[in-house]
Amino acid sequence: MTFVPANEGIAKLKPYQPGKPISELERELGITDIVKLASNENPLGCSGKVKEAVAAELAEIGRYPDGGGFILKDQVEKQFGVAHNRITLGNGSNDLLEIFARAFVSENDSVVYSQHAFAVYSLVTQAINAEAIEVPAKGFSHDLEAMAAAVKANTKLIFIANPNNPTGTWFEEAEFEEFMQNVPANVIVVLDEAYVEYFPENFNSLKFLDQYANLIVSRTMSKCYGLAALRVGFALASVEVTDFLNRIRQPFNVNHLAMVAAVAALKDDAFIEKSRVVNKAGMAQLEAGFEALGLDYVPSRANFILVNVKADPAQTFNALLKEGVIVRPVGIAEHLRVSIGTEAENAKFLAALDKVLGLEAKA
Amino acid sequence: MTFVPANEGIAKLKPYQPGKPISELERELGITDIVKLASNENPLGCSGKVKEAVAAELAEIGRYPDGGGFILKDQVEKQFGVAHNRITLGNGSNDLLEIFARAFVSENDSVVYSQHAFAVYSLVTQAINAEAIEVPAKGFSHDLEAMAAAVKANTKLIFIANPNNPTGTWFEEAEFEEFMQNVPANVIVVLDEAYVEYFPENFNSLKFLDQYANLIVSRTMSKCYGLAALRVGFALASVEVTDFLNRIRQPFNVNHLAMVAAVAALKDDAFIEKSRVVNKAGMAQLEAGFEALGLDYVPSRANFILVNVKADPAQTFNALLKEGVIVRPVGIAEHLRVSIGTEAENAKFLAALDKVLGLEAKA
Repeated sequence: MTFVPANEGIAKLKPYQPGKPISELERELGITDIVKLASNENPLGCSGKVKEAVAAELAEIGRYPDGGGFILKDQVEKQFGVAHNRITLGNGSNDLLEIFARAFVSENDSVVYSQHAFAVYSLVTQAINAEAIEVPAKGFSHDLEAMAAAVKANTKLIFIANPNNPTGTWFEEAEFEEFMQNVPANVIVVLDEAYVEYFPENFNSLKFLDQYANLIVSRTMSKCYGLAALRVGFALASVEVTDFLNRIRQPFNVNHLAMVAAVAALKDDAFIEKSRVVNKAGMAQLEAGFEALGLDYVPSRANFILVNVKADPAQTFNALLKEGVIVRPVGIAEHLRVSIGTEAENAKFLAALDKVLGLEAKA
Repeated sequence: MTFVPANEGIAKLKPYQPGKPISELERELGITDIVKLASNENPLGCSGKVKEAVAAELAEIGRYPDGGGFILKDQVEKQFGVAHNRITLGNGSNDLLEIFARAFVSENDSVVYSQHAFAVYSLVTQAINAEAIEVPAKGFSHDLEAMAAAVKANTKLIFIANPNNPTGTWFEEAEFEEFMQNVPANVIVVLDEAYVEYFPENFNSLKFLDQYANLIVSRTMSKCYGLAALRVGFALASVEVTDFLNRIRQPFNVNHLAMVAAVAALKDDAFIEKSRVVNKAGMAQLEAGFEALGLDYVPSRANFILVNVKADPAQTFNALLKEGVIVRPVGIAEHLRVSIGTEAENAKFLAALDKVLGLEAKA
């Protein structure tokens, strides 16, 4: 691009390369019934009550969404005990992660996150052209002590995830509390809980919100709630932080059908409980399968597992694709991330993995 | 906020104050059947084919949208003759306007736009903390000559709208061509055509795209296409500009139901034609009503009219609200913007306006 210089951070960013739609992949590969275990979606889809709620709102498509998100904030307040003025709605949590960075980080600031973390932390930091401080992981986990120690005078924000994507690792409340006490009160801490619904017994982040005005808890409805297509997430924080976030939030960032769907999804406890049961059974199925194949995996408290395929992950990914299974290489040597599917999907994946690794071993 | 300084631009931004949902207003005012002529929505709602298309996709709510927007880009290409690599999809055109600014404007740069322009041009400029150059309008219209002359060495982007919101004014191809020739080739020109579908005979922007690599044409599906609830817009530009825009676009910014709806909406020519007919009839009805009331208005080529109520607009707005009609004060003395509704909605508004202005005259 010669005629006009884009912002420096943007010019360095690699454009996002979207995956092909499944239908197109099926045409290309000449196969059908591809199993997608690549994006940590809920294999049950969404609650039937969500579909009913969305179907009942089709007459409203011509009207702008409620920019204040009244009905959704009401449901979040009811369920999590956090008032409207402490809630920020996002077009998925990706939107929120970007809003956090743009609200608090400038070009001469730095952002801290862990090695083996969600790719979006790095992307939103680059887009601002801020300094990225990537702290080496401890095994596959966040090294919280090292992350707090990595904070510099110009550090404005720290991204941490619990459980972490793409590794599935987690930390306990006591470790988190120690971390928060080591972080200066003028540094924003984003606690990304995209997968928290699967093992809620693990950690109660909400009790820390009143204690730390620099804490933002980020949630998505794309995973356990099964609303990935609709794009909705929410952030919980202090009144002061929420005020800033809402200044740059696009007024109609969350679409109306997403809000209606989110309210229905939050109300349907039974669907969430069923999703947890399916996930735990699927995790046991995959763990047993990996053990039978002699493969190591990283214990997970999310809806995916990182497995060591003892082979080139890109090659194994491509071989699995030809068998009709999509998983995700995540930039970690020898490892692939696989989302936990239904029993049948998991079985198909394990059979394909067995076949593919057997062929690779012979080659 | 004492403990952590937000970015300077953000700290100065006034948080967006969303309007109350109609249902809540009705409760507060103790009235029903409020007529909303405030957001330039299509009074016919959306095409029935859109509702059918969305209803057929509810099983896909659990899956992420196609980040590449394949089906929607295909339809845009078919309809407007612009290839996939020249299309950027947005979560409404608000999202696109923000992406344009973030991609090309930094803190020490300036942005040019007109007085009496869409409020979002100013908001996205402030969020970057860039300099805003607001060029005085010529009457209620863009002064294109003055806007080109206002470009400084640090100007990176110019926002212009045709027709303009909130005034409804427009310019012709010859004026635009002269403007483009006066603007340096390294300055991005955003041509916001949110309302272009209502009077398409007015202007053909697409032919300028091949001529000017610094031109971005921005379209929304929230107005004539009737998809405001779903949030979808698209930008057409050169390959180079599109590449930069897509680097900071959130990969899943457009939700799946919006994409499916947009494809159905783009295909339904009959609905657009009907919307134009209703809009033209409604415009004639409002113009005749204003003339009968002795009120001046600004001739419009959009789906709204700016009318001089010869009174305080905030006071008139509130009085109309009590009569069950929502219009929009737009920061222009004595004027209110009213969206063109159905025949019955327009009649209710005109009757309410007559009553309200009569009362004010007596007071």
